[in-house]
Amino acid sequence: MLTKTKKPPRFTKKVPAKARRLPQFDSHEFVMTLRDEPSGLHAFIAIHNTNLGNSALGGTRFSTYSSEQAALQDVLSLSRAMSYKCALAQLPYGGAKGVIIARPKQNRHEILKAYARLVDKLGGLFKTGTDVGISDQDVKFMAGYTSHMLGVTPGDRGELTTSNTAALGVFQAMKACLRQLYGSPDFTGRSVAIKGAGKLGGELTRLVSEAGGSVIISDINTSRPRTVAKKYARVTVASNKDIHKQPVDIYAPCALGNEFTAKTVPQLRCKAIAGGANNQLENDNIGELLHKNNILYAPDYIANAGGLIYVADELEPDGFKRSRVLKRTHDIEGTIGAIFQQATERRMPTYKVADMIARTRIQDGIKNER
Amino acid sequence: MLTKTKKPPRFTKKVPAKARRLPQFDSHEFVMTLRDEPSGLHAFIAIHNTNLGNSALGGTRFSTYSSEQAALQDVLSLSRAMSYKCALAQLPYGGAKGVIIARPKQNRHEILKAYARLVDKLGGLFKTGTDVGISDQDVKFMAGYTSHMLGVTPGDRGELTTSNTAALGVFQAMKACLRQLYGSPDFTGRSVAIKGAGKLGGELTRLVSEAGGSVIISDINTSRPRTVAKKYARVTVASNKDIHKQPVDIYAPCALGNEFTAKTVPQLRCKAIAGGANNQLENDNIGELLHKNNILYAPDYIANAGGLIYVADELEPDGFKRSRVLKRTHDIEGTIGAIFQQATERRMPTYKVADMIARTRIQDGIKNER
Repeated sequence: MLTKTKKPPRFTKKVPAKARRLPQFDSHEFVMTLRDEPSGLHAFIAIHNTNLGNSALGGTRFSTYSSEQAALQDVLSLSRAMSYKCALAQLPYGGAKGVIIARPKQNRHEILKAYARLVDKLGGLFKTGTDVGISDQDVKFMAGYTSHMLGVTPGDRGELTTSNTAALGVFQAMKACLRQLYGSPDFTGRSVAIKGAGKLGGELTRLVSEAGGSVIISDINTSRPRTVAKKYARVTVASNKDIHKQPVDIYAPCALGNEFTAKTVPQLRCKAIAGGANNQLENDNIGELLHKNNILYAPDYIANAGGLIYVADELEPDGFKRSRVLKRTHDIEGTIGAIFQQATERRMPTYKVADMIARTRIQDGIKNER
Repeated sequence: MLTKTKKPPRFTKKVPAKARRLPQFDSHEFVMTLRDEPSGLHAFIAIHNTNLGNSALGGTRFSTYSSEQAALQDVLSLSRAMSYKCALAQLPYGGAKGVIIARPKQNRHEILKAYARLVDKLGGLFKTGTDVGISDQDVKFMAGYTSHMLGVTPGDRGELTTSNTAALGVFQAMKACLRQLYGSPDFTGRSVAIKGAGKLGGELTRLVSEAGGSVIISDINTSRPRTVAKKYARVTVASNKDIHKQPVDIYAPCALGNEFTAKTVPQLRCKAIAGGANNQLENDNIGELLHKNNILYAPDYIANAGGLIYVADELEPDGFKRSRVLKRTHDIEGTIGAIFQQATERRMPTYKVADMIARTRIQDGIKNER
């Protein structure tokens, strides 16, 4: 009973019952439920924080969920990660995420149209693009109903795409790991295990192989890693369920989130982790456990920021510039190197150092504005 | 389990558990939870529908609530009423509402500042102004942080204010009632009971008294109706708990919502209802009950649209114009007259006819656009 409270309740008491059970809930500025009755659209948009800029960026997922709470949990955790990602990549945007709940017998085009129209009504607060279940074609289609879709304006893109820029960023994170472990970023004689042989995993394999490293790769779809293995030198295939148990220098989860749990961490035989997946740690305790087990962890939202760097670049006043994207993506090595150094000096887990820097930058955003 | 559903679930199955229990939930385009950790702001904004225009209008309440669900219920029902109000007043806006949850030891200015900043981020989708707990001063203060506050731009306002324009609208609704009951809108010899002697109730008393009618007035604050009674002819005072039982031509609830319930309707001895309160019917069954009991009901959101007409006028390209506000407010008589006529012809409750027209106009808004 709010009216009877005498002391101001602690923050944790104030969140809605539904969100209170979600550890990902982190004082999001806006958590929105969207509906359009004619099409049957039901979606969530979370705007985590816009202290760093007036627009909040994040892809939109179109996916089935086991429950509405699971969808809400996804959008909350992913939007927070986007805020942290922007803060660490020094991009002047807030973090956001959209989730459209997929249901049987929906008319996909009607759903996407209704979603795009509602995104448009937010007037640029939320800028979105591809994610799980949303293709480049979907984004192009939605761009017919809103000017706030990312990835549809032309520019000097060359060979760059979201996925291979993301892969390049992970490759830079791996270099930071090698430098920390061995004093040199040289891949010669080093081994990497990659979970996920999609666009990102494939490109990452190419980069590691061409740099002289060896790769063990897996995918839930067993034909994919075989195709990748045929294309590049020193690439072998493992089963998806055993890939994290490989005795390698670096393990790179490049598939879904929550890869590291109390169950999987004791099975790891890698020296370091640097991958493209979002939200790799099931929770903060897992970050502590990796630290205790002496496994060097390159924080996911820094390692995989290449995709965001690529996507956000078209918002620059001079439009998309390939050279700027490459520069910022290469900077990931230095950013992670600095975090490793701080973590060593302060004897802290790397995830914690990264989170602290992200929170401080977001907080400073407030201070600078006020 | 959404993934296991075979048939597309019915609409009622799709709403979040919390909202599913709320009869006011009506496929709102956006239901937003807003938070600002530094100030402790916790608010809801509901954007019911924007088919009729790109901006959604509605006041902001700053109030304590017995629970978060009660606050959510308030914002959902009030925003839907605003959509219907716009549709019936032919205003090209959607309906919305904001609710800030008041808690002990809040810094009022910090809360209002944080709220205004977040409203600003919505880029004009939501335009808001005074309501319960938000004064003109508060709106002026918030206008320092967003350009989407209503009621702060100058204009040819003359004697008009939100409340006395609202009162004028209720007076027009009363004329429509008298015409329906007696064939003439003349107040001479007619009696009106008014619950609520605030700005709206006071001005309404003046209008009825000066038109030759008699008034019985009450308020939760017992000194207020006495003050009003002294000022005008043929005005007497009743207790707030008995005011709805008066044997009058028209009963005018001008205080809080949910005035008519299964308990109060059988106690009514009026011939018609036309008042300034929002959401007067506890639910649709009450509308049916009034119809069955042969009590002529002027739908609340049409009768009290004067306040909205006043507030929305500053959004017109030529700025606030007193003459247009008066014209639109006088039109309320004809709008309600037409609804009474349709209801008679189709032997339907008046609330139902009004809701149908509102829904059709909102739906046509979609069709025209698509």
